[in-house]
Amino acid sequence: MSERFDAVDVIVAKRDGHRLSDAQIDWVVDAYTRGVVADEQMSALAMAILLNGMTREEIARWTAAMIASGERLDFSRLGRPTADKHSTGGVGDKITLPLAPLVAVFGVAVPQLSGRGLGHTGGTLDKLESIPGWRAALTNDEMMAQLGGVGAVICAAGSGLAPADRKLYALRDVTGTVEAIPLIASSIMSKKIAEGTGALVLDVKVGTGAFMKDEGRARELAETMVALGTDAGVTTVALLTDMDTPLGLTAGNALEVRESVEVLAGGGPADVVELTVALAREMLAAAGVAGDPAAALADGRAMDAWRAMIRAQGGDPDAPLPVARHTQEVRAAATGVLAEVDAMAVGVAAWRLGAGRARKEDPVQAGAGVELFAKPGERVVAGQLLARLHTDTPDRFARATEALAGTFVVRDEAPAPRPLVLGRIA
Amino acid sequence: MSERFDAVDVIVAKRDGHRLSDAQIDWVVDAYTRGVVADEQMSALAMAILLNGMTREEIARWTAAMIASGERLDFSRLGRPTADKHSTGGVGDKITLPLAPLVAVFGVAVPQLSGRGLGHTGGTLDKLESIPGWRAALTNDEMMAQLGGVGAVICAAGSGLAPADRKLYALRDVTGTVEAIPLIASSIMSKKIAEGTGALVLDVKVGTGAFMKDEGRARELAETMVALGTDAGVTTVALLTDMDTPLGLTAGNALEVRESVEVLAGGGPADVVELTVALAREMLAAAGVAGDPAAALADGRAMDAWRAMIRAQGGDPDAPLPVARHTQEVRAAATGVLAEVDAMAVGVAAWRLGAGRARKEDPVQAGAGVELFAKPGERVVAGQLLARLHTDTPDRFARATEALAGTFVVRDEAPAPRPLVLGRIA
Repeated sequence: MSERFDAVDVIVAKRDGHRLSDAQIDWVVDAYTRGVVADEQMSALAMAILLNGMTREEIARWTAAMIASGERLDFSRLGRPTADKHSTGGVGDKITLPLAPLVAVFGVAVPQLSGRGLGHTGGTLDKLESIPGWRAALTNDEMMAQLGGVGAVICAAGSGLAPADRKLYALRDVTGTVEAIPLIASSIMSKKIAEGTGALVLDVKVGTGAFMKDEGRARELAETMVALGTDAGVTTVALLTDMDTPLGLTAGNALEVRESVEVLAGGGPADVVELTVALAREMLAAAGVAGDPAAALADGRAMDAWRAMIRAQGGDPDAPLPVARHTQEVRAAATGVLAEVDAMAVGVAAWRLGAGRARKEDPVQAGAGVELFAKPGERVVAGQLLARLHTDTPDRFARATEALAGTFVVRDEAPAPRPLVLGRIA
Repeated sequence: MSERFDAVDVIVAKRDGHRLSDAQIDWVVDAYTRGVVADEQMSALAMAILLNGMTREEIARWTAAMIASGERLDFSRLGRPTADKHSTGGVGDKITLPLAPLVAVFGVAVPQLSGRGLGHTGGTLDKLESIPGWRAALTNDEMMAQLGGVGAVICAAGSGLAPADRKLYALRDVTGTVEAIPLIASSIMSKKIAEGTGALVLDVKVGTGAFMKDEGRARELAETMVALGTDAGVTTVALLTDMDTPLGLTAGNALEVRESVEVLAGGGPADVVELTVALAREMLAAAGVAGDPAAALADGRAMDAWRAMIRAQGGDPDAPLPVARHTQEVRAAATGVLAEVDAMAVGVAAWRLGAGRARKEDPVQAGAGVELFAKPGERVVAGQLLARLHTDTPDRFARATEALAGTFVVRDEAPAPRPLVLGRIA
């Protein structure tokens, strides 16, 4: 078959700073999916995009081309509004777990297609798989039935959505081209738009433990994604939220499920509750539904929805969660105020303890992770317990402890309070 | 085996504008040759090098790493000076053919390891293969024996020299990363330094038919290569020469051999003679040998060396050269002065007629090409023969004629004379 374009011409155009035409973008994404454009050609193009950028119009077309590479879901026959949330990834970010059932309480269907963790950020599916019996893989029909009944589903994204993105994401991961805003934005938004949600709330993390260390770049990413969603007919809102320090007091699979259940029971760390409620309010507003999410956490309705959601996917919400076989403690070196707990360091420590994976095919330990006992701003005394490390494989303690060196900073004076929600883009 | 570096870290360093360390460069070139760094990783790195550049020190180290990937030849036991010439490629550039035997006349050994053509520029080996019986492939021992006897050899570079370059060159060709000065310079110089020549003269082409359209970039490339050669102990000089118009009156394999033989017989087009003599003078000077190359063309010594060189590789210098089966003529549309004959257009026409190849594995036609009958600055009358197109496959005339549209520009006034040699870098 004769091709409309030559891959080298497309690469050279972007390399030389030109705008790619709609036809070039459509062709290159499709030809890459078909294997006509080779990996080494796409990686050169990705690097040129990273260094020379793309206009909003190019990003929108690229996103549309990735959506066109696969199937689209259609929730219209559910007869109720749909809302989804996407986080760009952080340490201790278990918000999806309490959030999905909480929003479903108000009659909004929440089709939360999620991924697994890679590197220092945990994966939502990995966390839920620590619940005995729970399964991540659902057919489209099962997902649709669960949305019609329980109202919330957290499951693995099928391979049919945006296959071009799946292929490109794996390539970017090994070619130093992950950090391109046009490619990040189109990767996230192509999957969310193809998924067919009516409303989308983006949680764009900023800080040491986030993908975006810099608030300016995080804002640019958020604005790009909001524009892409809005143009595609999805009501899209983004919050910029702090990721200098871990969310809540746990990082690890079963540890984060436990904390999520505490939040659903009306307790839990204040920051996890605050962000869950803030994102729930945004999702309800974007879906055009009134409701008080804080009340639904307090009165047990969110917990009921959670239990129904877990049961619907074979999980036992009452089963004891796995516990790691070995623990080790970290204690305060001085008396004063805990000024900083570096999110990246805690994420890397949890990862090294076995909560995360280095390669896609690695298993994770359900019980492994880091449990914190103080948050920045709290007074501590020398020798006080600050963290407990959990693992099934005690030879991992050494490298986890190494990652935590200098993480718990104790000073004489309290740090300036830092807001959790740094900005909102709609 | 555990690797010293991670490919992504090296890519990200260059992507973010940092200088690569010597150890990073040594590792990435070696690991790419071993297949540990994948093609898609090297192409992303090549694009980052193209867009962010390299320091002279990085280029020198990269060149050294490519040399270290293979064998090095040693001509010291020949007991005489060696000199080589490299052209960055142009249309009608047959200079190597008369030049190598001409320089050998003066006792300088000329080990001219050459390549085949790809795209609109012809390949020296393709040209010589139009001589019945001539063979391009010699063993190192055969090459050494011929240098010791005849003194000049033009043959295919063995696969043992800079295998990293061979692999990287093929990759750059399909990933839009050919035009990076650090990669061009290191590619050329790694082969020439590994080849073991004592002196090297570079013919860096500038103009529409050249790789470098811009004199500033051509000068930068020339300076980079001269510095690399000098630092490696090779006496290196570069001439910047014009490639807005084809060299001589022929572009094509047998057509260019015929013209080269005219030059060796003391005739031939003035520009081919001028450049052959200029480059011969540079090679002799760089090799530290006195001599008058113009005299050796006039008195038949260069022709004797040519005949011996062709015979040594199985060729018959007296055999008739192949002639294409079909011709078509191009005539002047107006009367006036021929102001321009675009080199790129003539190169593309010769290529489309069958003189060149689109893919490495394509065959070439020995007789195909373009024969010119007027040079820029000459007076022409309407209807006068300007060019004859040669091919064995007459269905190619249409696309060749298309390439030549607007190529022969006739004006009322003569163009300003343009020097052939635009600059010299030593």
